[in-house]
Amino acid sequence: MCQLLGMNCNTPTDISFSFEGFHRRGGLTDHHADGWGIAFFEGKGCRLFIDDRPSCDSPVAEMVRRYPLKSENVIAHIRKATQGVVSLANTHPFIREMWGRYWIFAHNGNLHDFDPAPAAYFHPVGSTDSERAFCLLLERLRQRWSEQPSQEEVFDAIAEVVDEVTGHGIFNFILSNGEALFAHCSTHLHYLVRQAPFQSAHLIDEDITVDFSTLTTPQDRIAVIATQPLTDNEHWTRLLPGELLMFSQGRVALRRQGTHPPVEASVPCPG
Amino acid sequence: MCQLLGMNCNTPTDISFSFEGFHRRGGLTDHHADGWGIAFFEGKGCRLFIDDRPSCDSPVAEMVRRYPLKSENVIAHIRKATQGVVSLANTHPFIREMWGRYWIFAHNGNLHDFDPAPAAYFHPVGSTDSERAFCLLLERLRQRWSEQPSQEEVFDAIAEVVDEVTGHGIFNFILSNGEALFAHCSTHLHYLVRQAPFQSAHLIDEDITVDFSTLTTPQDRIAVIATQPLTDNEHWTRLLPGELLMFSQGRVALRRQGTHPPVEASVPCPG
Repeated sequence: MCQLLGMNCNTPTDISFSFEGFHRRGGLTDHHADGWGIAFFEGKGCRLFIDDRPSCDSPVAEMVRRYPLKSENVIAHIRKATQGVVSLANTHPFIREMWGRYWIFAHNGNLHDFDPAPAAYFHPVGSTDSERAFCLLLERLRQRWSEQPSQEEVFDAIAEVVDEVTGHGIFNFILSNGEALFAHCSTHLHYLVRQAPFQSAHLIDEDITVDFSTLTTPQDRIAVIATQPLTDNEHWTRLLPGELLMFSQGRVALRRQGTHPPVEASVPCPG
Repeated sequence: MCQLLGMNCNTPTDISFSFEGFHRRGGLTDHHADGWGIAFFEGKGCRLFIDDRPSCDSPVAEMVRRYPLKSENVIAHIRKATQGVVSLANTHPFIREMWGRYWIFAHNGNLHDFDPAPAAYFHPVGSTDSERAFCLLLERLRQRWSEQPSQEEVFDAIAEVVDEVTGHGIFNFILSNGEALFAHCSTHLHYLVRQAPFQSAHLIDEDITVDFSTLTTPQDRIAVIATQPLTDNEHWTRLLPGELLMFSQGRVALRRQGTHPPVEASVPCPG
């Protein structure tokens, strides 16, 4: 299995602190050593760094740690291969263009007997179940709309595909188009929102503390999503199985409740 | 205008030497300081590094210089903006997936009154003429074939689109899908093929010499393509306006002659 990290903010923010703890799980404090990647949106532009070496030993990760990139939406992934060999083509996150925007996707889980029919718009390059799921998700959206519809419509359509795919296994994922960030939980996914009054946070994987009040303005709002909590002195909310969230501007904007009990419609969140 | 660098090899090869001279043109030995990028194919997988800072002052370029990535196909670009602001979304090379492979494209030139009709499969994310041309090129291929046809068919189809686009201005470009590398010259493009017996090469932009005979095996063959020659003691072949080449396995595999006089058909090259 793998680990996911996501960030969605209302102002371009440096993810260094969270990445510092996260990247150590790629072979140092945990066993996810089969490659890693991170994508940073800057407006509609996107940088995607991937490496098939463990993140704790990757020159690309070393560069990311030292180059404080500010981004509104970030998705990172460290891989423990379950399907597909260790190779660059199988390294998350994956990228595609749809409706004139880049879409980025990373998956934690394992899908069985999952082999969607050949599609018109999106095709896997590698051999993972994860990339097949990403392509199916985009294909369903693109088949329905030739231009980007409202975020609510996208959210509801994603929820439908999620229900289709989760029949095949574990499907924790983070997805973003640079505007909003979608997070789905099958088994393990946590999030928190940092906002004023900002406090100090202490990493679990390394003895590092940051006082966010010295690095932020009172208007800043930052949502961080991770497979397992990254800090030990903040309140992380655990998502329930089946929960699907859409983050926008650093807060939960849309939420579909967990499937126990099932709640189908998306409802706006006051944030 | 911008500068292009490409490499196509019959064995995964480190591009460090060529990149060493090339990246200095991004603000140090030349004035192309509006961002840069480089893509490395490893099999079907692809790493794309882009940065909107000048390459001579980019932490990403510094990392690329120190991390000897071996690749069969590389495309790099340093940008002097002509159309579109300096931003990540406008930074070459651009990436798309088609027929289950990544396609990478970088352009040197400037296209006027070039605004293709909205398409079905590929849409620009940024605001450059270059990305519009890339999307048009892929769109024409994808509209014709739903699965990848022969390299000869792809080559001839690219030649048709090239003729359509060059009516709008200067269209030097390098394109690759990780198998083959296509290079088209409107004004400035040079190439050479390094093969046994390997010799020493000396950079133009920096006083560095490499003896390739100590770094290669007799079977290696490496084609390097660049806007302007990178070395001053090797024989670079200048492409003629209208010439379109397809490199495969480190040699010229298909060639369309320059358009003065026009020669339409692609002809295999003995290499």
